[in-house]
Amino acid sequence: MKENLLLTPGPTKIPSEICSILGQPIIHHRTPQFQAMLKEVVEGLKYVFQTQNDVYLMAASGTGGMEASVCNLLSAGDKAITVEGGKFGERWTEICQAFGVQTHVIKVEWGQSVQAQQIKKVLDQDKTIKAVFITHCETSTGVTTDIKAIGQVVKNTNAVLVVDAVSSLGVIDLKTDEWNVDIVASASHKGFMLPPGLAFASVSPKAWKLIGTCKTPRYYFDFRKAKEAWGDTDTAFTPAISIVIGLTESLKRMKKMGLEPLFAYFARLAQGTRVAAKALGLKVFPQDNCVSNVLTAIVLPAQIDGNKLVKTMRDKYGVTVAGGQGQLKGKVVRFAHMGCLTEKDLIEGIACFEKVLQEMGYSFPAGSGVQAAQKFFEQPAVAV
Amino acid sequence: MKENLLLTPGPTKIPSEICSILGQPIIHHRTPQFQAMLKEVVEGLKYVFQTQNDVYLMAASGTGGMEASVCNLLSAGDKAITVEGGKFGERWTEICQAFGVQTHVIKVEWGQSVQAQQIKKVLDQDKTIKAVFITHCETSTGVTTDIKAIGQVVKNTNAVLVVDAVSSLGVIDLKTDEWNVDIVASASHKGFMLPPGLAFASVSPKAWKLIGTCKTPRYYFDFRKAKEAWGDTDTAFTPAISIVIGLTESLKRMKKMGLEPLFAYFARLAQGTRVAAKALGLKVFPQDNCVSNVLTAIVLPAQIDGNKLVKTMRDKYGVTVAGGQGQLKGKVVRFAHMGCLTEKDLIEGIACFEKVLQEMGYSFPAGSGVQAAQKFFEQPAVAV
Repeated sequence: MKENLLLTPGPTKIPSEICSILGQPIIHHRTPQFQAMLKEVVEGLKYVFQTQNDVYLMAASGTGGMEASVCNLLSAGDKAITVEGGKFGERWTEICQAFGVQTHVIKVEWGQSVQAQQIKKVLDQDKTIKAVFITHCETSTGVTTDIKAIGQVVKNTNAVLVVDAVSSLGVIDLKTDEWNVDIVASASHKGFMLPPGLAFASVSPKAWKLIGTCKTPRYYFDFRKAKEAWGDTDTAFTPAISIVIGLTESLKRMKKMGLEPLFAYFARLAQGTRVAAKALGLKVFPQDNCVSNVLTAIVLPAQIDGNKLVKTMRDKYGVTVAGGQGQLKGKVVRFAHMGCLTEKDLIEGIACFEKVLQEMGYSFPAGSGVQAAQKFFEQPAVAV
Repeated sequence: MKENLLLTPGPTKIPSEICSILGQPIIHHRTPQFQAMLKEVVEGLKYVFQTQNDVYLMAASGTGGMEASVCNLLSAGDKAITVEGGKFGERWTEICQAFGVQTHVIKVEWGQSVQAQQIKKVLDQDKTIKAVFITHCETSTGVTTDIKAIGQVVKNTNAVLVVDAVSSLGVIDLKTDEWNVDIVASASHKGFMLPPGLAFASVSPKAWKLIGTCKTPRYYFDFRKAKEAWGDTDTAFTPAISIVIGLTESLKRMKKMGLEPLFAYFARLAQGTRVAAKALGLKVFPQDNCVSNVLTAIVLPAQIDGNKLVKTMRDKYGVTVAGGQGQLKGKVVRFAHMGCLTEKDLIEGIACFEKVLQEMGYSFPAGSGVQAAQKFFEQPAVAV
């Protein structure tokens, strides 16, 4: 039997308890039973988002949540800042431009993160900019951006701060309210250990003011409709019922563990993976000052074809990791640290990675990656 | 143990084989394994849609598929016909108006269906109308509209014909190509026996021409992006993976049965339910010439509070039916005939309906509804 280990940064492995909930007979959404779940889910999301703001659910993938953020805030001709340091930063630009928003694009070399001062400079130069769109963890590169510092800059301006936290929420710290983030967009299939199909967005009072002035045509993603429906503990349109029910269980698990221990847990997985990469003589792609604990992008030796490596790991050994996207296509592999992944899962993944690297002709002391990770994980976890 | 019987017109009961697929570990969507499923699903959908047109999948509820139809076809200021004879017809108007489309609204009394000649008259008077939006089965009233006749009228004009087949597809006949329907929008949680969260749309060459001229800002629902991604057997954005996998099984079941026997099966369920209503001295809401086989809306005796009846059936006896919406609130109950529902399920539903009617003081010969349905179902099904 070939195993089937999913180490991709979304969808990520679903715990068996949640699988079993997803396989239960469905219930109707306009029932007190489901309304109670919706309430529980929204309360739980507020805990994970670390916010008192409204949080809305949409039957959509993460991009739907991102589009909702743009089309509810900005009208054609409005100005916004986007930051491109990877594929998902580029998506903010694409969405803004699809809606006729004038984008001031800050380009960052892939593997680096934007600095708050770069944002400040642009905002200082043009007071008419209405929104700043940032990617918390850039899943294509494994870079984390310092949202706290950017929040400090944006909060004193007229602009709202919108963060794509699709891959980061519930994995690394994101203090929505304390860090002055106006909209956080996320989705079900990363930190929340669920199938894709449910997007979330938190909306601050400052964002609501801008929403009130926005002329972009919208219906399905209209936050005003979501707010109105929530008055009756309802969603504006039929929700992704089974994922909402599964989410009650994910949130219970996350609450039980607590946010700080959860973030420490993933930080440890990430560190163990970085230690293994180093032992294999390989570099982690991002610069040290912005390396993410959400996923680790490892740079492959120049002679290794990354697409073939990913394919072999998956089709020969049943371990699915992600390859590179865009300019990193074929050049990196990406291991996720999210959801219910364990040290054991990552060691298995590294062992398989080593095996295929060897088969493809890269030479290194056999077992050195696994050994380094094991040694790292033998250290007791630091109490939080 | 209280049973949990779902007789609502979406979400509808999920077969246990599909439940068990939905509870399996998830796989990644950018794999040959999932691509093969996507291909199979699109081929299967073309069979059920009875079309050679493109069919696209979106992670969204049915309304997302409806919005996609509007925002890809029409620009602000364009003209369209909508038909309002229930809540879902009104939704076409709402979506069109949200996108600045000038709507010529044909109002039809609830319980009746629009006639092709009414559409023709409006199209003849104004040659600049670009689209006609119709509801195939109006789920709020249980009315079916004659799409074939409307297709005959619209095909000779510049306008495209768009049909909301969210509740009807796979339940009653809809010959997309033969009847000249340009866009059919549907979703996973009615005839396809799956959780909500996946929308579908078929797009004709005539629709593609109009799409090419459309200026409405769009991104997530952009059919051009869906078409481009499909070139690589991919979806534009992360699909609702688990529902797509479940759909492979629904489509197998539907293909195995064949469309004509499938439609005959639901027609029989619907007829049995209508016979039971009559035996209880109750009327079916729609006029005879447009009564739907997708669901049956039964008019309650004037003294019965429909909301209380639905609540009692659900909370006391575990049978969930739908109440009335909009102007029918509290006045009807709605029984679905779709997906994997059986004669036995409907007889159980009718028995529970009788029990609660009696408890609420409506007098009729006890058991007469169940008896009439049983007698009807004893007749051999007519071979198709």
